Amino acid sequence: MDQPTPGFQLRFPTGMAPVACVDIGGTKVALTIADASGIRGKWSEPTAKVGASDALAQQVIRMIEQGCAQCGITKEALGTVGVVSCGPFVLQDGMVELAAPNICGGIAGTARGLPNDWTTALLEAPLRHTFAKVRVENDGVGALEAERRWGALQGLDHCAYVTWSTGIGVGVCVDGRALRGKNGNAGHWGHSFVSDNRDALCGCGNIGDVEALIAGNAMARRFAGLGFSDAVQLFAAARQGRADALEIVDGLCYVMGRLLFNLMATLDVQRISMGGSVFWHQQDLLLPRLRAQIGSKLPALTSGVEIVPAGLGESVGDYAALALVL
Amino acid sequence: MDQPTPGFQLRFPTGMAPVACVDIGGTKVALTIADASGIRGKWSEPTAKVGASDALAQQVIRMIEQGCAQCGITKEALGTVGVVSCGPFVLQDGMVELAAPNICGGIAGTARGLPNDWTTALLEAPLRHTFAKVRVENDGVGALEAERRWGALQGLDHCAYVTWSTGIGVGVCVDGRALRGKNGNAGHWGHSFVSDNRDALCGCGNIGDVEALIAGNAMARRFAGLGFSDAVQLFAAARQGRADALEIVDGLCYVMGRLLFNLMATLDVQRISMGGSVFWHQQDLLLPRLRAQIGSKLPALTSGVEIVPAGLGESVGDYAALALVL
Repeated sequence: MDQPTPGFQLRFPTGMAPVACVDIGGTKVALTIADASGIRGKWSEPTAKVGASDALAQQVIRMIEQGCAQCGITKEALGTVGVVSCGPFVLQDGMVELAAPNICGGIAGTARGLPNDWTTALLEAPLRHTFAKVRVENDGVGALEAERRWGALQGLDHCAYVTWSTGIGVGVCVDGRALRGKNGNAGHWGHSFVSDNRDALCGCGNIGDVEALIAGNAMARRFAGLGFSDAVQLFAAARQGRADALEIVDGLCYVMGRLLFNLMATLDVQRISMGGSVFWHQQDLLLPRLRAQIGSKLPALTSGVEIVPAGLGESVGDYAALALVL
Repeated sequence: MDQPTPGFQLRFPTGMAPVACVDIGGTKVALTIADASGIRGKWSEPTAKVGASDALAQQVIRMIEQGCAQCGITKEALGTVGVVSCGPFVLQDGMVELAAPNICGGIAGTARGLPNDWTTALLEAPLRHTFAKVRVENDGVGALEAERRWGALQGLDHCAYVTWSTGIGVGVCVDGRALRGKNGNAGHWGHSFVSDNRDALCGCGNIGDVEALIAGNAMARRFAGLGFSDAVQLFAAARQGRADALEIVDGLCYVMGRLLFNLMATLDVQRISMGGSVFWHQQDLLLPRLRAQIGSKLPALTSGVEIVPAGLGESVGDYAALALVL
């Protein structure tokens, strides 16, 4: 199995127990198993969304058990299981369950067409029933920690990581500490409102929040009627210089630009790094437009604040859970 | 001189050196002097906005010197000078200067009619030149700390204080710590964008940020043409049931309600307490409308989160600087 792609070699502590690192997103579940010798294997599957509300947790357990078996690691030898997941989280008897709009069909009703009626997806309780040591964090926090440790946010006490992907997620560090909040949900800027636009229903039930307007999964819903059946078509047309596609891209960047400005204005950060599949593959189109949205607004708060591509590139998610357990 | 109004008695440490506590707002500068025997005196003046860019700092120095003289306290006997101020702050050689849109006329140009062309107002450097021990904080942080210590946020690790006054200010505590940021500016939610409305110019130069749309000083600018020359007239008309005034009040609460929702969604707080002259005198009109704006949005993040009037009432500002120095 290959090492992850960025240009550095992860160093694992000698004698480290094997760890299982899981990244749960709205589209896929990714697993990395590592031990003192390095990355032992990586696997990924579409996120389970059918069946009982513990289907996702059972998928994670099965993937870890199969991955360990392939690596010759017994369940007894396994150290920490680190899980980063899209949220929001709710706590049930102190255990994290997911109230994630891209996974749970019971939140926004049937409008989003998810194949289940879950109001939450079980997560931490089944994992703790199966594995000895489990740590679950918001994926924004995990990605932030990975970028602070190995990526574009090294050495910074005031910074944020923003993912523009299936959903929109953020992890924020202020005064040297990653923000968590009462249920570990700090960072859900994707569900903030920055515009009056009411054209889009978010999976969370909000009308017109950032994620509803610009997340990867919003594009087909919003722009199919304009001839763009998904983000790939939209950005391809923009690259060909089509005015209608470029206007939509400008509109997407207006919304994300306001999110980034709000983050700078309210949390006084030094740098924001960005990743996620939408951003990463279109960053040449998006980054100049996002920077222009900040422009010279409120220089006392934005002057010198950089927006940069994630140092870990497309591998931020792979490293996010590793950052929790190493 | 009376004790401040809330129903509790501040206790001052025996043998405490006298402290000078200053609250700088866009409208007035307030000074409280206290020592081991309690509050010794309180004074307030309109904020100096004319003259050289150190005029405000010189006003603060003069007020403290005069107040100490009236209390029979020598400059040598004075302990900490605690200052809370509206921001944003910029640091010049490590010293706080104010780039505050309600004080500095040089930020938004002439459009706001301030009687100076300051891009910043000096503050910390002249104070440190005059007094031995000085602490300057964003007024949102000071008010938050006062509410956590004596007010409606006692015992909470995840909370915020929001002032709706001449300007809009916020102090936030996450994971048990007040957020400061790289220049002490965390909390400037008044300059965040939550709407596409471009009818209003903020003193910071932003068009349509929260403060531009709903701050106390925005109302005359926005609604004079509709027959309301200031906030007092507007709210009086709303209380008489005038539909046009009530529609405006609903619009103000739409904007503030989005700010409050964004705060809950992005920082996962337990409770928000609110003060400031606009909120305090109209809270019976505003609070139900603000709570309705949150409604049942995204229950994983808002369920159980309370919006309450400040426990310290109109005295939050008086206590804000005290909370820094006691």
